[in-house]
Amino acid sequence: GWARTVRGLLLDVSGVLYDGGADGGVPIAGSVEAVRRVKASGLRLRFCTNETQATRENFVKKLRGMGFDISVSEVTAPAPAACRILKERGLRPHLLVHNDLVPEFAEMDKTNPNCVVLGDAAENFTYANLNEAFRVLIGMEKPVLISLGRGRYYKETDGLKLDVGAYMKALEYACDVQAEVVGKPSKKFFESALAEMGVPPEQAIMIGDDIVNDVGGAQRCGMRALQVRTGKYRPSDENHPEVKPDAYVNNLAEAVDIILQQL
Amino acid sequence: GWARTVRGLLLDVSGVLYDGGADGGVPIAGSVEAVRRVKASGLRLRFCTNETQATRENFVKKLRGMGFDISVSEVTAPAPAACRILKERGLRPHLLVHNDLVPEFAEMDKTNPNCVVLGDAAENFTYANLNEAFRVLIGMEKPVLISLGRGRYYKETDGLKLDVGAYMKALEYACDVQAEVVGKPSKKFFESALAEMGVPPEQAIMIGDDIVNDVGGAQRCGMRALQVRTGKYRPSDENHPEVKPDAYVNNLAEAVDIILQQL
Repeated sequence: GWARTVRGLLLDVSGVLYDGGADGGVPIAGSVEAVRRVKASGLRLRFCTNETQATRENFVKKLRGMGFDISVSEVTAPAPAACRILKERGLRPHLLVHNDLVPEFAEMDKTNPNCVVLGDAAENFTYANLNEAFRVLIGMEKPVLISLGRGRYYKETDGLKLDVGAYMKALEYACDVQAEVVGKPSKKFFESALAEMGVPPEQAIMIGDDIVNDVGGAQRCGMRALQVRTGKYRPSDENHPEVKPDAYVNNLAEAVDIILQQL
Repeated sequence: GWARTVRGLLLDVSGVLYDGGADGGVPIAGSVEAVRRVKASGLRLRFCTNETQATRENFVKKLRGMGFDISVSEVTAPAPAACRILKERGLRPHLLVHNDLVPEFAEMDKTNPNCVVLGDAAENFTYANLNEAFRVLIGMEKPVLISLGRGRYYKETDGLKLDVGAYMKALEYACDVQAEVVGKPSKKFFESALAEMGVPPEQAIMIGDDIVNDVGGAQRCGMRALQVRTGKYRPSDENHPEVKPDAYVNNLAEAVDIILQQL
């Protein structure tokens, strides 16, 4: 009966809707249909992603190309959340992000930067660019580092890649600062997704493949959370020392089956 | 009278003997003569460096070119210390180090690696090389990461550069492991320098520019330690929350003046 009072779902995207990385991707069996069934059910729905290799526009375009019913206004992503923080605090960013993410920051003043925004820059994580971001930070009286996520690594078709969290740790150590993390598992980030959906945490369920960033983060906000056995899921996650999902499901389609049956 | 019982000196090299990075360097005023005076005094002397951008042979050649009286057998450096560890434990390294350091590992078996050795790889810190080192580590049942130092950053003529410690932190985080650090401030490393010199810690003085790696590390081994106001010294070091040198000196020449006067 854990799903009986549910009014809204937050869905992670990569590893839940589709497999593969920024370099491609195929829908996970049943996921396209599952998203349609959630929408037909009247449940509110929000896509909650740490994707920082593309603007939301291009991200949504890719998913629509795979058959998903998704629009830009339904996506909660780190870059727009970071832009809100920059505006609120009068921060001018030095960007170390993927080229394809740069347009999300088009309206930001980038002259004479007083913070560094770090995303999954992929090929832009060069020795020169890392040294440059470091110099900008260490030159500040009080370095401000904003990181779009804290993931350790992810899998692309050509193998595992270090994620933004690893580079965040490098800069944190070099500058003796603590990054402010925007994106999952930040509480603020989940709360803004919930607010956009208009559903309180106790009536929302997060569905994700990442035991720490999806499941643990959502639970700390008062939501229930399911882990799918797709994407970056590993059997060893089921013995995680700190995080225990409210349930395991084989994939998104099974999660949606169970939730809709209980309504 | 803190120097009265001294029988041996450990000298850091970069920032104490000379200024500038791997890309060049000029002797610090009085240092060439100071090394000569120490040798003439009968004090034992050992150069204790975290340099990992060159073999000891090339490192010594560069210093001799600046006028220093120094030979390979007088240098304690991380790469040979790492090689001893690799041999003792039957480890086959995957190297992520500077090209010029590779010859130090010439005799090591590098097939089917069961550990990663990380040095200040400089231009070799590419996205591809970092991902490759990460994949080797994460593929091990119990990842073994050996880091040649844990420095945060250093200064070259074209600006500040991230040091090996920052990349060590990135890999530590991504693989959820703790690196084994060879080089200063590791106790083992100082102890091997002392053993090579044949002097117990209470009769030795470390002279360095790095408040944490030189001064703090040496003091934890029972040595006294002086900080020079050259190299990476910053005035804020004099308010360091954890480390207090036994004395400050303006440079190596002044340190040697004071020590020789007290003998």
